Amino acid sequence: MKVYSSEKHALHFPKGELYGGELVRPFECPERWDYVMDRLSDRGYEDFSEPDEFDVDLVQRVHTPDFLEFLETAWDLWKAEGMKGDAIAAVMPTRRMQQNRVPNHIDGKLGYYAMAIETAITSGTWEAAKSAAACAISAQNAVDTDQSAFALCRPPGHHAAKDLFGGYCFLNNAAIAVEGFVRSGAGRVALLDVDFHHGNGSQDIFYDRDDVLFCSLHGQPEDAFPHFLGYSDENGSGNGEGYNWNYPMPPNTEFSVWFDAMQDACRKISDYSPDALVVSLGVDTFKDDPISFFKLESDDFTRYGEAIGRLDLPTVFIMEGGYAVSEIGLNTVNVLDGFLSAGS
Amino acid sequence: MKVYSSEKHALHFPKGELYGGELVRPFECPERWDYVMDRLSDRGYEDFSEPDEFDVDLVQRVHTPDFLEFLETAWDLWKAEGMKGDAIAAVMPTRRMQQNRVPNHIDGKLGYYAMAIETAITSGTWEAAKSAAACAISAQNAVDTDQSAFALCRPPGHHAAKDLFGGYCFLNNAAIAVEGFVRSGAGRVALLDVDFHHGNGSQDIFYDRDDVLFCSLHGQPEDAFPHFLGYSDENGSGNGEGYNWNYPMPPNTEFSVWFDAMQDACRKISDYSPDALVVSLGVDTFKDDPISFFKLESDDFTRYGEAIGRLDLPTVFIMEGGYAVSEIGLNTVNVLDGFLSAGS
Repeated sequence: MKVYSSEKHALHFPKGELYGGELVRPFECPERWDYVMDRLSDRGYEDFSEPDEFDVDLVQRVHTPDFLEFLETAWDLWKAEGMKGDAIAAVMPTRRMQQNRVPNHIDGKLGYYAMAIETAITSGTWEAAKSAAACAISAQNAVDTDQSAFALCRPPGHHAAKDLFGGYCFLNNAAIAVEGFVRSGAGRVALLDVDFHHGNGSQDIFYDRDDVLFCSLHGQPEDAFPHFLGYSDENGSGNGEGYNWNYPMPPNTEFSVWFDAMQDACRKISDYSPDALVVSLGVDTFKDDPISFFKLESDDFTRYGEAIGRLDLPTVFIMEGGYAVSEIGLNTVNVLDGFLSAGS
Repeated sequence: MKVYSSEKHALHFPKGELYGGELVRPFECPERWDYVMDRLSDRGYEDFSEPDEFDVDLVQRVHTPDFLEFLETAWDLWKAEGMKGDAIAAVMPTRRMQQNRVPNHIDGKLGYYAMAIETAITSGTWEAAKSAAACAISAQNAVDTDQSAFALCRPPGHHAAKDLFGGYCFLNNAAIAVEGFVRSGAGRVALLDVDFHHGNGSQDIFYDRDDVLFCSLHGQPEDAFPHFLGYSDENGSGNGEGYNWNYPMPPNTEFSVWFDAMQDACRKISDYSPDALVVSLGVDTFKDDPISFFKLESDDFTRYGEAIGRLDLPTVFIMEGGYAVSEIGLNTVNVLDGFLSAGS
């Protein structure tokens, strides 16, 4: 399996993440990338590549022009105001406020384009986000000839909507890969999100479309971030009705329950008969993840990787979350190994 | 003029305010109260009182029961989760997210009820907020017999909506005073907001009503907090159409321009012929305020106080913002002195 990754990921590392009322060292930290790379090498993966150039056309199919301009210019606007810290939103357009007028001031712009506040923009964020999207695009391109590829994206992407960043995400790498398949002629693409957190950005991007089936397994929004999307009755709208499936699960969910839900999602994907599959691969479902509440063991990741492999589809894996750093690598590679063993 | 204030204000003082990407010492700090009290004494004000008991019935006319329960319980829920810092929201229901489902987890609840993130809830916040509302209520009661009174509220209130806190505000003290007049039989009440920031909470609370005329002079939302409300085309809805007037003004606005707008607001108030007037008195229009951009001099505060006095209405002044601490007292008392000189 080809692996795409970029050293530029390290350009994004905010000084602090707003957590528990304090600015703490971000859980989404550069070592995450190293842990996965190291374990891939240990297990004999050897086809590593830097991604091709950032494909603007493809990214514009997912994100709005004004949002992309914001991401590109936010840091300079922030520094021009003399701000000392990283760029963090402080006010957002919540209910009964103006939701379609973009302020001039960077404080207002940050709030307009944010869906959460733990995520800071730094001097290197835009370059890192572009490199992650480039990994997703190159991995998708590779699947035109190979059966599967893995994009070790950092920063992750599934919380980013067409015009919203947050939850550590800026560009929606998985959605960009989906659009890559569509541009290549796929009539139907499935997007399976196994990250602990709901893929609110991905859902939002494809919510009214029937050419993309979205299935997400995640901590229920009543108790888990992002809290304001991911309910089971969110089934899509318009043409997209019936093409959005959420599997919210409560605290302390064990693998047996989680795997039942995943097999249901796999049946839906199989029935949909897509031309390709994109997997938003977060491994924060692990029992020791510091900011999640499912109870998966490391061997469980192998088992569900096998289930994905049995779908027998051209598949791109996109790295999302996973924060118990020492085990991220193990659990990620277990999924890929399981996938490959089922496909062989 | 009677002055109502409470020592309990000091129970609210978060460790940090999210500003410029850092947690800095809050601009809305306890010394603000001392500066005003000292200057009141210097100028010969002598009728100081602690407020009466918190009037739950009146507060429930402004805020929803679930929001009040949230404010009362948020700190305990936060501590029960083992959080180390003060309680600060990290994710909010922005556009295209669920805006009417309240999460179970305190992180989600904080985001649901927040309209901005700079404002932390601490162990003493609820007691302090109740004491500020009690000052507003007692001052309003006093105006049943006197012509005017001043409530030195801290924390301030005008950003708080019926179910939203933020912008240093928890309970909307000015709106509570308005409802006090209504409960006492007033058929029409005017609410004039001269704080530098738009009184988004007050606007929202009375937006569909014709028995409350709301006029706000403020930094334009394109450039100033709260960024997502305060445009000039927000004129009220339903029965309230034509009873909401915003005067947004650009950076570096001088007093002459500001005062023209204020005199226009005073004409609207006079034409409305209200039974009583509530003034949201923020003095952050001052030229040296650290987080605002108008250019008023200290003498200008006297002049506009006179204009309010010439309306010749039963009037309650409610303290809102003002952050250049050394001049807060001077500018606040200048407004009150100007008011009293015009009315005598």
